[in-house]
Amino acid sequence: MKKLINAPGSVVADALAGMAAAHPSLLVEGQVVRRSRPKEAGRVGLVSGGGSGHEPLHAGFVGYGMLDAACPGEIFTSPVPDQILAATEFAERGAGVLHIVKNYTGDVLNFELAAELREGGRVASVVVADDVAVKDSLYTAGRRGTGATLFVEKVAGALAEQGAPLDDVRRAAEEVGARSRSFGVALTSGTVPAAGRPTFDLPEDQVELGIGIHGEPGRSRRAHAPARELAEVAMDAVDGDLPLRGDLLVMVNGMGGTPLIELYVVFAEVAAYVRGKGARVARSLVGNYVTSLDMQGFSVSVCQVDERLTGLWDAPVETPGLRWGR
Amino acid sequence: MKKLINAPGSVVADALAGMAAAHPSLLVEGQVVRRSRPKEAGRVGLVSGGGSGHEPLHAGFVGYGMLDAACPGEIFTSPVPDQILAATEFAERGAGVLHIVKNYTGDVLNFELAAELREGGRVASVVVADDVAVKDSLYTAGRRGTGATLFVEKVAGALAEQGAPLDDVRRAAEEVGARSRSFGVALTSGTVPAAGRPTFDLPEDQVELGIGIHGEPGRSRRAHAPARELAEVAMDAVDGDLPLRGDLLVMVNGMGGTPLIELYVVFAEVAAYVRGKGARVARSLVGNYVTSLDMQGFSVSVCQVDERLTGLWDAPVETPGLRWGR
Repeated sequence: MKKLINAPGSVVADALAGMAAAHPSLLVEGQVVRRSRPKEAGRVGLVSGGGSGHEPLHAGFVGYGMLDAACPGEIFTSPVPDQILAATEFAERGAGVLHIVKNYTGDVLNFELAAELREGGRVASVVVADDVAVKDSLYTAGRRGTGATLFVEKVAGALAEQGAPLDDVRRAAEEVGARSRSFGVALTSGTVPAAGRPTFDLPEDQVELGIGIHGEPGRSRRAHAPARELAEVAMDAVDGDLPLRGDLLVMVNGMGGTPLIELYVVFAEVAAYVRGKGARVARSLVGNYVTSLDMQGFSVSVCQVDERLTGLWDAPVETPGLRWGR
Repeated sequence: MKKLINAPGSVVADALAGMAAAHPSLLVEGQVVRRSRPKEAGRVGLVSGGGSGHEPLHAGFVGYGMLDAACPGEIFTSPVPDQILAATEFAERGAGVLHIVKNYTGDVLNFELAAELREGGRVASVVVADDVAVKDSLYTAGRRGTGATLFVEKVAGALAEQGAPLDDVRRAAEEVGARSRSFGVALTSGTVPAAGRPTFDLPEDQVELGIGIHGEPGRSRRAHAPARELAEVAMDAVDGDLPLRGDLLVMVNGMGGTPLIELYVVFAEVAAYVRGKGARVARSLVGNYVTSLDMQGFSVSVCQVDERLTGLWDAPVETPGLRWGR
C-alpha cells in the first residue's frame, strides 16, 4: 500500500505541521491544535480529540463556532491525559470546559483522567455513541461514537459562542447525541501506515455492513450491491433504532477513499428513503468528514432536529473542515 | 473494483440527483447544474463544465461568487454543445457570459460550437492550461487544464459578482491562468465505472509523475518515495516553469482516493519548499477539489497573486465545494 508520508512514525506530526502551515487560524503546540485567537473570555471552552486517521475530525473542526482545541493521538490511538489536560487549560476562558468524547474505552478513560488532573476550572463531559451497528465492539463498551460527533461539536460550539453556561452546552450536546444515529458500510479496508497492510481482508465481491471507523467488524458481510440497496440497509438500521420523522440533519460521509461523485449517488438514495418515510432532509452534508484513512465506503448519520437545533446548526462557523456564513 | 453506484450508465444522473437533493441552492435541469437563485441582472455570467469524475469541479462550484451554471458531461467525456448552450442561456443576465474551459480538445471544440450556436448575447472564453507536466497529451493539444481552473473560477466569479464588464472578467481569468502552474503525482489509477478496471497499471512500488486528471501518462515513472521527495519533484517542475516568488496561492489537491492526513503531510513539504525559495504561502487550500475518481495521489497548483488577486480570492463565496465569509 503506497502512502504519501515521510515515515510511518512521523505521519501525525508531519500532518499537524501541514495543518499549521495551511491554516493561520490554528496553532499547533506539541500535539494540541488550538485556535490562534482564543475565544472571547467568559465563554465555555470545547475540547475534543481521539486517534488520528479520521480527518478532518477533530483538528479540522477547531475554530470559531466549533472547538477551541483538539488533541489528536497517534493513528487510531487515544490522546494521552497530559495532552488533553493542556488542551483543556487552553480552552478555559472562565466559564468551564466541555469535553466531547467518542465512545471508545481508551478515549473515555484518558479524558476522565485529564479531567481529574485539572486543578481549578469546571470540566463537564459528553460521550457520543451514535453507531447503531453493534452493541459492543473491539475498543468499545456500548455503541461506538462516529459521525454524530461532528453534529455535537457544531451545535455545542454555536451555543458556547453565544455565551450559554456550561450546563446548557453540555445538555445540548447530550441532546444532539441522543437524537442522532449512524451506520457505516465498507467496500475496502483502510491501511494504517505503521502496519503497511489493510486492517482487514474483504473479498472483491463483498462489503462489510456496520463497519467501525477503525475497521472494527460490523454486523455482517454480504455481496456487493447497488448503492440503492446499501443505502437502504444503512437507513433501515438507523430507522429501526430511532424512527425517522420530522426534520432531519443528514450526513453522507466518505471514509477517506471514496470519490465525491459516489457519495452524491448514495445521498440521492438516502434522501429518497427519508422522503419515503414521510420525513424531511432539512440540512445536509456530503463529503469526507469522519474518515478512516483510505477506506472506501460511506456512513450515514441522521439527527432529528427542531427549530432550535437547526438554528444552532446554521450559526456561523469558521474552521478548516466546516465553514459558512460568518 | 467496487463502486458505490447503481449502474455504470446512471452514475452522472444519479450523482446530479444527489447534488440537487443535498443543495437547495442548486437546480439540476437535464445535465445543467445552475443556481436556483439567478445572479443579479446586469452582471457577467460564468459557465464552466467538462467531463464528470473531477468532483467537486465544476458543478460543486456553482453558486454566489463562482459559477452561474455548470455542464457536466459523462465521466471523462466533454459536455455536448446543446448542454453548454442551455447553461449559457441561463447564465446570461444582460452583460454577456464567460466560458471557462479546461484545455482538452473535445471541451474546447464543444464550447466553441456552443458559442457559435448562441444567438444574441456576447460570449467570451478563457482556456485554462496550467499543467506543466507535458507539452501535448492524449486528449490535448498544448498543456492540460487542471487545478488552476478552480483559481480562475473563483477570481472571475468574484469580479463578475462585483459588476465588472465582460472584458475585465475575461482578462482577469486569463491573468490568473497565466500566473498559475500545476503538477500531479499518481500512486494508483482511478477506475472509470463503465470500464470496471483501473485506467492504467502502476506497479505497487512505482508512482507516475505528471499524471493527468484522466489518467493520461505523465513525464515518467519512478520508485515510490517519501512525501518530501515527491513534493520536491512536483515543486521543481512548477518552479522550473514559473519561478516561485512573492505571494502565492497554493493548493495541495487530492485525486479522490487519498486521505486528508496525507495531503497535509504533502502540504507541509510544499510550504517548506516555498519558504526555501524565499516566496510566501499567502493563501492555501488542502483537500479534494479537482479529482480523478478514486485515484490516489496529489497535485499541487500555485498561482502568483498580488493584492488585487488576493482580495478577489478572499471575496465571499457560497458554493457546495468552496464556501466562506459571506
